[in-house]
Amino acid sequence: MMNTRSFFTRLLRSVAAPVDSARTAERKAREAIALCHALLSERGEVSGAALARDALAAYDALPANAFTFFVNFLARDFAPLPAKIASAVTAYSLEASPRNLVALQRAVEPPRQELFRRLNVAPGATAALVDMRRRLLRELKANPDWYGVDADLEHLFGSWFNRGFLRLERIDWRTPALILEKLIEYEAVHQITGWKDLHRRLAADRRCFAFFHPALPEEPLIFIEAALTERISTDVAPLLDPELPEADPALADCAIFYSITNCQDGLRGISFGNLLIKQVVYELGREFPRLKTFATLSPVPGFRAWLDEAAASHAERLPDFTCLNDADWFANGLLAERLREPLMELCAYYLTCVKKNAEPLDPVARFHLGNGARMQKLNWLADTSRQGMHRSAGVMVNYLYRLADVEKNHEAFVRHHEVAASHELKKLARECVLAADGISA
Amino acid sequence: MMNTRSFFTRLLRSVAAPVDSARTAERKAREAIALCHALLSERGEVSGAALARDALAAYDALPANAFTFFVNFLARDFAPLPAKIASAVTAYSLEASPRNLVALQRAVEPPRQELFRRLNVAPGATAALVDMRRRLLRELKANPDWYGVDADLEHLFGSWFNRGFLRLERIDWRTPALILEKLIEYEAVHQITGWKDLHRRLAADRRCFAFFHPALPEEPLIFIEAALTERISTDVAPLLDPELPEADPALADCAIFYSITNCQDGLRGISFGNLLIKQVVYELGREFPRLKTFATLSPVPGFRAWLDEAAASHAERLPDFTCLNDADWFANGLLAERLREPLMELCAYYLTCVKKNAEPLDPVARFHLGNGARMQKLNWLADTSRQGMHRSAGVMVNYLYRLADVEKNHEAFVRHHEVAASHELKKLARECVLAADGISA
Amino acid sequence: MMNTRSFFTRLLRSVAAPVDSARTAERKAREAIALCHALLSERGEVSGAALARDALAAYDALPANAFTFFVNFLARDFAPLPAKIASAVTAYSLEASPRNLVALQRAVEPPRQELFRRLNVAPGATAALVDMRRRLLRELKANPDWYGVDADLEHLFGSWFNRGFLRLERIDWRTPALILEKLIEYEAVHQITGWKDLHRRLAADRRCFAFFHPALPEEPLIFIEAALTERISTDVAPLLDPELPEADPALADCAIFYSITNCQDGLRGISFGNLLIKQVVYELGREFPRLKTFATLSPVPGFRAWLDEAAASHAERLPDFTCLNDADWFANGLLAERLREPLMELCAYYLTCVKKNAEPLDPVARFHLGNGARMQKLNWLADTSRQGMHRSAGVMVNYLYRLADVEKNHEAFVRHHEVAASHELKKLARECVLAADGISA
Amino acid sequence: MMNTRSFFTRLLRSVAAPVDSARTAERKAREAIALCHALLSERGEVSGAALARDALAAYDALPANAFTFFVNFLARDFAPLPAKIASAVTAYSLEASPRNLVALQRAVEPPRQELFRRLNVAPGATAALVDMRRRLLRELKANPDWYGVDADLEHLFGSWFNRGFLRLERIDWRTPALILEKLIEYEAVHQITGWKDLHRRLAADRRCFAFFHPALPEEPLIFIEAALTERISTDVAPLLDPELPEADPALADCAIFYSITNCQDGLRGISFGNLLIKQVVYELGREFPRLKTFATLSPVPGFRAWLDEAAASHAERLPDFTCLNDADWFANGLLAERLREPLMELCAYYLTCVKKNAEPLDPVARFHLGNGARMQKLNWLADTSRQGMHRSAGVMVNYLYRLADVEKNHEAFVRHHEVAASHELKKLARECVLAADGISA
Repeated sequence: MMNTRSFFTRLLRSVAAPVDSARTAERKAREAIALCHALLSERGEVSGAALARDALAAYDALPANAFTFFVNFLARDFAPLPAKIASAVTAYSLEASPRNLVALQRAVEPPRQELFRRLNVAPGATAALVDMRRRLLRELKANPDWYGVDADLEHLFGSWFNRGFLRLERIDWRTPALILEKLIEYEAVHQITGWKDLHRRLAADRRCFAFFHPALPEEPLIFIEAALTERISTDVAPLLDPELPEADPALADCAIFYSITNCQDGLRGISFGNLLIKQVVYELGREFPRLKTFATLSPVPGFRAWLDEAAASHAERLPDFTCLNDADWFANGLLAERLREPLMELCAYYLTCVKKNAEPLDPVARFHLGNGARMQKLNWLADTSRQGMHRSAGVMVNYLYRLADVEKNHEAFVRHHEVAASHELKKLARECVLAADGISA
Repeated sequence: MMNTRSFFTRLLRSVAAPVDSARTAERKAREAIALCHALLSERGEVSGAALARDALAAYDALPANAFTFFVNFLARDFAPLPAKIASAVTAYSLEASPRNLVALQRAVEPPRQELFRRLNVAPGATAALVDMRRRLLRELKANPDWYGVDADLEHLFGSWFNRGFLRLERIDWRTPALILEKLIEYEAVHQITGWKDLHRRLAADRRCFAFFHPALPEEPLIFIEAALTERISTDVAPLLDPELPEADPALADCAIFYSITNCQDGLRGISFGNLLIKQVVYELGREFPRLKTFATLSPVPGFRAWLDEAAASHAERLPDFTCLNDADWFANGLLAERLREPLMELCAYYLTCVKKNAEPLDPVARFHLGNGARMQKLNWLADTSRQGMHRSAGVMVNYLYRLADVEKNHEAFVRHHEVAASHELKKLARECVLAADGISA
Repeated sequence: MMNTRSFFTRLLRSVAAPVDSARTAERKAREAIALCHALLSERGEVSGAALARDALAAYDALPANAFTFFVNFLARDFAPLPAKIASAVTAYSLEASPRNLVALQRAVEPPRQELFRRLNVAPGATAALVDMRRRLLRELKANPDWYGVDADLEHLFGSWFNRGFLRLERIDWRTPALILEKLIEYEAVHQITGWKDLHRRLAADRRCFAFFHPALPEEPLIFIEAALTERISTDVAPLLDPELPEADPALADCAIFYSITNCQDGLRGISFGNLLIKQVVYELGREFPRLKTFATLSPVPGFRAWLDEAAASHAERLPDFTCLNDADWFANGLLAERLREPLMELCAYYLTCVKKNAEPLDPVARFHLGNGARMQKLNWLADTSRQGMHRSAGVMVNYLYRLADVEKNHEAFVRHHEVAASHELKKLARECVLAADGISA
Repeated sequence: MMNTRSFFTRLLRSVAAPVDSARTAERKAREAIALCHALLSERGEVSGAALARDALAAYDALPANAFTFFVNFLARDFAPLPAKIASAVTAYSLEASPRNLVALQRAVEPPRQELFRRLNVAPGATAALVDMRRRLLRELKANPDWYGVDADLEHLFGSWFNRGFLRLERIDWRTPALILEKLIEYEAVHQITGWKDLHRRLAADRRCFAFFHPALPEEPLIFIEAALTERISTDVAPLLDPELPEADPALADCAIFYSITNCQDGLRGISFGNLLIKQVVYELGREFPRLKTFATLSPVPGFRAWLDEAAASHAERLPDFTCLNDADWFANGLLAERLREPLMELCAYYLTCVKKNAEPLDPVARFHLGNGARMQKLNWLADTSRQGMHRSAGVMVNYLYRLADVEKNHEAFVRHHEVAASHELKKLARECVLAADGISA
C-alpha cells in the first residue's frame, strides 16, 4: 500500500514532467527498454523484484514525449519471432497433438506478456500497467502498430481483474476521503459538485457500491449509485438535490440506479457493469426485503444526435426541431407541451427501432438490454441539466431489472436482437411518424 | 471467505464420496459439462455468477470415479477448433500484421481458458480449480490427452498467482489455528509432530513466513521456517527440539532456513520459493540489523540413491557401503569415524560434479544454486532422523544467500552451469576417489 | 499490543524469578514504591507515561518475596489521611451541601486509586494490575491490612471493565492459537485435554463465545461453551467426546451451555456471567431461528459434601452411602439402580430446599437462579468423570433460560428467595425422606 | 458501532425536538427517571442490557425542556443517604479500620455512579453520558444543585477515559470522511474553511494525530496539527495557506504544532493535551529522525484584554492603543513599525510577569508551561486573521518542547512558579515600561 501510494505520488508528479528533446526522450526510452530486456532474461528471473522495480522506475521517470518511443519499442522488440511461429505452425500441421498445440500457443504469445507479468512484481506495477494502457489507448488510432501491445495488456487484465478476485464494497461516509475524492473526480453521468453533494448521495436513503481489486486497494474500478425511494423515480432532479430531506430507507419499495461509472480507462473492454448491477440488486434485496422494484433512471445519450440527422433526412415529415438548440426551450411551457408528443414518440422509436449492426444504436440501451433489463418507461423532461438537454432532449428511461426475467431477456436479445420493452413504450414507438416506413439510421 | 470455507468442507466430504457405477459417473460428468457449456455460451455471460455457481456445484458433487470422464470432456470438447486455427494460420501467413497475429493467438487459445475464467466468478472457485489441477496431475501420465488441460490451468495460474498479487505474511502464535493446522499437515522437510512442536518453531528465536493469495486467504501457498542463531547451524536436531530453551533473537547474527515447503500441488510449475527466500532475507535484515549470515541447513536428498548406483558401478574403487542400510550405523562410533572421510568426499563430489543435463543431479542443490546461493559447508551426521539417514546418509549442506552475490552466481549457473561452492567444499570434492576420472552419474 | 505482549513475556519470566534475601526484597519493594510516590507527585503529572513505565517495570522486576512488602507499602503509604477525612467530615456535618459531599468523597478516596490510574498509562499496566489483584487475593486472608488495597482495585476494575466496554467475540478455529491455548489452560468445568478436544468443541455444531476488554485484547475474561443439539442433553459424555461426529447445526432446536469459565482471578467480584449468557442466547437465536430451548447442563458441585454431612446427622433415616466413596460404584448396575431413587430425591431436595442465608447452598444453583433461570430436570449418571462422581455423585441439572421468564424468576428469587423449579423436580424433592422435617444444612 | 451510529442520528434529530409544555416535559422526565430507578434495583441487575437500553431511549427522547427536570431528579433522588453517611462516619470514628473506611467510601458514593455504570451497558451510552455532561455544564452555574451530578460524571470519565485506554491515531486523507468532517467542525484554534483547506493540512508535509476511546470509535477526543518545516515557523499564514506547495517532509528539521483542539466539552477536566503532545513528539521523532526542534506556534489569547485594562490603569505611562481597535491597523506600515517595540515588550511582559494565583494569566502560556515547555520567541504580526488581531494583537509565541528539559521545567513551574523563557524573551520583558514597578494584573 505504501508503495502503491508513493507510486501514485510519482505519477502525479510526472504529469508535470518537462518534455525533453526528442533525442533525449528516445535515449531514456531506450534505457528503460534495456531494463525490460534484462528483466526478461535469465538474470531477471533471479533478481526478480529488484530489477522489476528498476525497470518500472525507469518507465515512470520517462519524460512525457518518451512514451511513444517506449511503446514503439515494446511493439517491435517484444513481439513473437516469426521464425518460431512458422516452425510451430509446421509442427502442428504435421501432427495436431496437444503438445504441438501448446507449443504453438507459446510460440504466438508475445514475450511482452511475460515482461508485463514480471514487471507486476514491483510495488505499484499493476496501477502503472493500467495507466500505461490508458495512455496507449488515447493514441492507438494514430499508432496502429500498438495494436498487439494493447491486445496483450487487455488479455492480461482480463485474467487479473477476473470478477472472482474483485471485492464489492459499500461506499459511504465512513469510506476514506482518498476514495471519496475519486468518486467526485470520476463520476461520469451526473457530475458531483463537491463534498456536500457527495454527502447527500451517501445518506441513509442512498447506496453506493464499488468493485475493488486487491492490488489497487484505493482505486475503485466501477461504482454505482442508487436511491431508495417510495416509487419509481421519473425525474432525476430530486435525486441530485443536495437539499432533499433524507427519507427513511425502511419505507422504500424501489431502488433506482441513477449512475454507473467505469473509473479506469485502462481497463476498457474488461466489463464489470453487468455483474455489479446484479450483485447490488442482490445485496439491496437482502438489506431491504421490502424492495420490490429495481430500475435505472438513465439518459438517452444518442437521441439528439440521431434526431438531428433524422430531421435532416425526413425534413418533410418531422416538425422543425431547431428550437431544441436553445438550451432553455423546456422553460417555455407552451413550446414544451407542443413538443412533448412527437419527441416522446421519436425517442421511443429511436430506442426500440433504430439499430446499428442489428443492435440498438443508443449505447446505454445496448448496455442494459444486453444485461437482460427491460425498457420500461420514458420520462418527459426528467433531466433538464445542460448535458441532459443537449444529449437526451431531457428524456430519461427506466430500465427494469427483474432477476427472474434477466436471463430470458438477455438470450432473446443476443440471439434474436429482441428488445425487451413495455407495452406502453412499444405503443409510443409505433405511433411515431417514422414508424410506418421502418426507417432506421 | 464464508464460501471458501464451505467449499473446503464439501471437498473434505467428497473425499469420502461413494464411487458410483461407471454409467452413472459418466452421466453426472456429462451433466456437469453441460453446465460448463452453458456458462461459455451467451447465456453464461449474463447469468454470470449464478451459472458459475451451478457448474461448480455440479463438478464438486461428482463421485470420485467421474473425475476422469469430466477431464476427458474438458480435453475434448473445449479445445480450439482446428478449422479456426487453420484459417488464422493462413491469414497470418499471408500478412503477418498485428491484427492477424492477435487473431491467431485467439484461434489457438482453448475455450477452456475462458471457461475457467468464468467459473472463477463462483465463490470458492479458485480453490476448486487449484484442486482440480492437483488431481489431474496425479493421473496426467496415464492420460496424455489431458496435457492441454494441464497447460491451460498452469497458464492461468501463472497469471493469477503472479507474485505482485501475493501477500507475505508472518506466521506466529497469533495466527488462526486453522492455518497453523495446515502447516502441521503440509510441512514436507522436517515433519511437525504436533502443536507443541509447532509452538516451538514459532517462538521468539524463530521466524516463519508464508505467501498467501487474496482469493485463498486461509491457504498458505508456500512457507519457510528460519531459526535465529548465534552462529551457523551445522546440526538440525537442536533446531527441531521442542524442549530447546528460547534464545534471545536480538543476540543472533545468523538466520538459518531449515525448511521450505510448497503447499499446493495444484500450483506445480508456478515458482514462489526463490522470491520467498529473498523477501524473507530482506524482512529479517530489517527486523534484526545484527544479522550477518543468511544460510540454509538443507538435506542432500539424492545422495544415497546415487551412492548406491556409484557403489555398484565402481565397486573396486569404493569402500563397501552396505552397512549404510542399517539405519543406526551412525550410533557405532568407530564405524562412523571410518566412514566419515570417504562419505563426506563423495557427498561433496556428488553435489558439485554429478550432473544431469549439465545441472546438478541433486534437486535441492539445483534449487538453491539456481537461486544464486553458494554451497558453503557439508555437515557430518547433521540429520540422523530416519529420513535424513535414508536419503542423505545424515549429511546436510549450508547454502549461503549473500544478496550481493546472488545475481552473479545465478548468471554463472544459468549460462555456464557453474556451481558456486566454497573452497573447502571444492577441495573435499577433489579429494574424492572418483574425482580423478571425472566420473558422473 | 507489542507491549502487552512483552509484558506477559516478562510476567512468565518472573514466575521463575529467584527469591532474594528478605532484606534485598524489602529494599527493592521500597524502590518500586518510591517510583510510585514520584508518579503521584506533580512530577508524575507531566512525565506521565515515562514514569509510569519505570514504576511498572520496577514492580514487575520484583523478586517473588518482595510482593508482600510492596503491598504492605501500598496499604500503609497510599491510604487517605485521617486528618483530611476528619476535617471533611466536620465540614459536611456542619453543612451537607453538594460541595462538601464531593469534598468528603475525595477525602475518603485513597491516593492509591489515583496511583493505579496513573500506572495504567504504561503499556501492559491493565494486565499487570489485574494480575496484582490475583496475587493479592491469594494472600488476603493472611493480610487483613490489604483489605483497602483490594477494595480499591475492585472499585477501579468495576469501572474499567464495565460491560459497555467489553466485546463479545466468537471463538472458533479461526481464532489465534495464542487465545485458544488459554482456553485449554483456563477451562474450569470440563477439562480440555488438548488441541484435538478443543477442535471438536469449536466444530460446526458447537459455539464458544468470550468477553474481551480492549486493553487486554488477547486475554478472554470469561467464556462459555454451547452445543447445538436436537433435544435437550441429559448426559455430558457425548458432548465432550472428541470423536462424536459433527451434527448439522441447522437441524438443532436446542442450545446446551455445558461450560462457563471465569478466566481472571484478579477480576473476582466483577460479574460477567449473567450478561454473557443472555447475550449469547440472543446471538444464537439470531443465527439459528429454529432454536427453541436454551438450557445448561450443569454440575451440582456441593451435593456430595452436603450429603456426607446429612448422612452423618441423619444416619438413622438415610441409607448407607459409604459405597459412594468408591469412584466406580456407578459401574455396578444393581447398586446404581438401588441408589438411583434416594439419590435423585436427595439431590432435588438439596438443590431446592437446602439454603444458606436463605439462598440455595449450591453455588451453581445460586448463580443460575440468580440469573433468572429455572431448574428444569435432574439427570442420573450424567457426568461419570472422576470430578463429576466426586462432587455431584454423577448428577447433572438442566437450568432453563426462557428470556420471557428470566426477569420474573429473578425478582421472585431476589425478593422472596423463591426457587424457580419444574413440577417434576419439586415433586422429587417432596418425596425425599428428609423433606418431612424441613431439614436444612 | 451500528448502535453508536444510530444514537448519534437520534441525537441530531433531538436537536430539532419540539419543546413540550412544562407539565408534559416534567412527566416525561419523571418516566425516564422511573426507568433509572428500575435499572438500579435488583430487577435491573438481571434484565441488564434491556432495561439500560429502555432508560437511555427514554432519556434520549426527552423534549429539550425536560432536561432540567431530569437532572434535577438525578441530583435529588440519586444522592447518598445522609443517615447512611452518618452511621458510616460514626463507625469509622470509633474504629478507623480498613473495613470501616471502605464502608464509609461506599456510603458517600452517590447511587448515581452505579446508575451511570449500569446505563453504560446500553449501546451508545458512553456517548450519551458525555453529551449529558456537556449540556449539564452549560447550565451548571444556574443550577448549583447539579454540582454533585457533574462531579460524579467527571469522576467516572476520569476512570473510563484513562490514557491507558486511548488509542493515538494518525489522521490523514485515508481517514473516513465521517471523522474528517468532525475535525472541520471542531477545530478551535485556526478555523478549517472546508475540505480543500483540510486536505492541505493532511498533506505529506503535515501531520495530524488524535486520541480515540474504544467506546467512541468515531469521535476524536482531542487532536493536534503539526507542520514539518525547514526552520521554526514565525508566521502562521503560510501554514494555513491551502495553496502552499507541499514540501518534502524528509528535509524538515522542525515540527511546528500550530493547533490543538479538545473536541468533547463533556470531558472538561479530563486532560489529554499534555500526553498527546509528548506522544506525538515521540512518534514524529521516530518517523523523521532528522527532526531536531519541536515547538508550537501559539496565540496569546489574553493579551489584548489585559492590554486594554493596563492601558486604562497606566494611561500615563503607555502609548495610546485605541488604534488597535481598528482591525486593519497592521496594514498601515508606519503605524505598525511604531507599535512594534512597545507591543512586543508589553506582550513579553504580559506572558512572563502577569500572574493570577502565582501562575501566568494567559491560558495558553499556562498550559504549555505546565507541560514543561519553554517560551522561546515572540513573533510580530504572525497571525493577522480577525481573531488573531482581536485577541493577540497579531503576536504569536513559539513554545519549545525539549524532552530532556520538560520534567525540570515542569517541576520548577509547579513548585516555584518559575516561567521557563529564553533570554531574548526575558530581555524583552525587562525592557517593558511596566517592568520597573513589577506591576501585575
